Amino acid sequence: MPSRRQRLAEILDRSGAQAFLAQSRPNQLYFLDHPDPSTVISRGSAPAILFSADRTVIFPGIWIANACRDMLPNCEVIPCELGDPSPMDQLDAYLRKAGLKKIVSDHLSPQIAGTEVVVDDVGAVLRRCKDERDLAFMREAARISDLGMSTAFKTVRPGLTTLEVVAEGTAAMLRAGAEYAVMNPAVGIGTYYLDSGEDPRRVIKEGDMLFIDMAAYVHGYLGDMTRAVIVGEGNAQQRELLATVHQAYRAASQAMVPGAEGRKIYQGVVDCYAAKGWAKYFVHHLSHGLGLGGDRPGINRESGDVLQAGDALSCEPGLYVPGLGGARVENMIYVSAKGPEELTKCPIVPQLGF
Amino acid sequence: MPSRRQRLAEILDRSGAQAFLAQSRPNQLYFLDHPDPSTVISRGSAPAILFSADRTVIFPGIWIANACRDMLPNCEVIPCELGDPSPMDQLDAYLRKAGLKKIVSDHLSPQIAGTEVVVDDVGAVLRRCKDERDLAFMREAARISDLGMSTAFKTVRPGLTTLEVVAEGTAAMLRAGAEYAVMNPAVGIGTYYLDSGEDPRRVIKEGDMLFIDMAAYVHGYLGDMTRAVIVGEGNAQQRELLATVHQAYRAASQAMVPGAEGRKIYQGVVDCYAAKGWAKYFVHHLSHGLGLGGDRPGINRESGDVLQAGDALSCEPGLYVPGLGGARVENMIYVSAKGPEELTKCPIVPQLGF
Repeated sequence: MPSRRQRLAEILDRSGAQAFLAQSRPNQLYFLDHPDPSTVISRGSAPAILFSADRTVIFPGIWIANACRDMLPNCEVIPCELGDPSPMDQLDAYLRKAGLKKIVSDHLSPQIAGTEVVVDDVGAVLRRCKDERDLAFMREAARISDLGMSTAFKTVRPGLTTLEVVAEGTAAMLRAGAEYAVMNPAVGIGTYYLDSGEDPRRVIKEGDMLFIDMAAYVHGYLGDMTRAVIVGEGNAQQRELLATVHQAYRAASQAMVPGAEGRKIYQGVVDCYAAKGWAKYFVHHLSHGLGLGGDRPGINRESGDVLQAGDALSCEPGLYVPGLGGARVENMIYVSAKGPEELTKCPIVPQLGF
Repeated sequence: MPSRRQRLAEILDRSGAQAFLAQSRPNQLYFLDHPDPSTVISRGSAPAILFSADRTVIFPGIWIANACRDMLPNCEVIPCELGDPSPMDQLDAYLRKAGLKKIVSDHLSPQIAGTEVVVDDVGAVLRRCKDERDLAFMREAARISDLGMSTAFKTVRPGLTTLEVVAEGTAAMLRAGAEYAVMNPAVGIGTYYLDSGEDPRRVIKEGDMLFIDMAAYVHGYLGDMTRAVIVGEGNAQQRELLATVHQAYRAASQAMVPGAEGRKIYQGVVDCYAAKGWAKYFVHHLSHGLGLGGDRPGINRESGDVLQAGDALSCEPGLYVPGLGGARVENMIYVSAKGPEELTKCPIVPQLGF
């Protein structure tokens, strides 16, 4: 595959543009010439970075001006100290001088006399097909997520709060090198409170259905997975609910091959739940894209992209039945030319600590 | 002090309005009739809640409809299941039927024929003066923050990454009951990279200046503090830098009395740093409000509120000197009629683990 910057240059060439103005963090991390840009722009983003075929010009905030200067030797870094014009004003002045005929921008931009500004997130388009570096960092994000999730579930036992459980999982991910990690637990019976409406200080009880979702960032890449269990034996209906979610996950993830239509995969999950009379309790999306953020493809009730080789997306059917509880399973899937590969490796049924 | 709802009713009365439409989470948590609304709306917010003198009508998303129904018996909860009209459409229909002459809204709202909608965040105004419940929850948020910060610093020693350090502090806060907790470390010498531009996987070295900021939510209330240290002895200039930040913190926090002008307190910090030739390295705000979110008063370079008894705000001077390192101290301050009270209790100089 040609390099990221080569592919960007080709797109710009085709549309007669001389530069790409990136204001979104995912695009900045994607195109910066550095082995791990998340170590430079470690939080937030630079107000603007201008990528052209042969140069990179960074307009950093005061917070990261020195870091960019010291750690990005191949870029032109506009100085920013207290009292200097704002980065966006400096960008404006720079563009007026540069006299570019046309630039493509991932966000709305100020009007520059003599320069045509086209708003088009070509970065998001290029980022969709994962390259070697994407995959290496995503595997690491999945590995750290696996570690956090298994650590959390090994801690689960009646009498602990869900916060005590996610404390262990969160710490494990930070120790392993995630630059950010949060875990969202949901526990209960008799409701389908889902992500909200649950006090995380609530004490886990025998017979609860418990699921934990999470988000971690590793080298700027999202790690994301969900596991669900019954605490103890549960009743027959709860066991059927959990088994049905597992079944829906397996069918949906196996259907994630190049050329598959997202809306058909979604309908497969709906049909699986409808067979038990539970279709109305599958209330959310099935998939969001994975990568540096704002990624395609996505699959939800209203729409679904057609999958392509090189895609990466979540697969997360969930079912939240009043009177029984909620369950969701989520793995990270890479759509290779040969078919779906689970980047998430830990078993679908996590081991509990009692 | 009259109750929150009484004070709201008075404001509405004065402006001839019959209800307050709250879409922001802080306002929803503030006015809901429940001993701890953060256990019901535990993440995110309801799309809309309508507060009038004698009733509360909630338009929840599908995620929290059942939780609101079960846990808020004194409210009218509009059902929301898969296939129902959206909460905002239901609100629209409700308002059309209700025939209210005038409502006040904290966000832009759809136009309702026959109803005047005034956008005015009266919730934020009422929330500024802290009541007993605010203070109880804020003290708890400060206590848990203290615990997390001291735990993190007790872990600091050369050879560990900053992520290994914040893992311990974060876990301590979650175990203690914070519903959300993150810590942002910054370590380095020779830069003032501040919050960004630092790889959190970086290994701590003897002679580093290290500071850790954090954010925790406890019963919906922000816990927020920062501590700074030199790892080991450091050099004379580093010690002077840290002592200067401590001095600026003490003077600024002691000046936080009712009637004090924020811009004068800010200027005091600038003057303190200017005496050492470091004024240009104090690049951020001094204070933001504390509470449920989006709180006043604030103090920054451009503006500063006049402080009032009942205010709660951060006090966080910081100084980031190229070649030496960065330091910031931040405590949570309550402005009582008698003067400033530090809600943050742990010592300004944290104990290290070596």
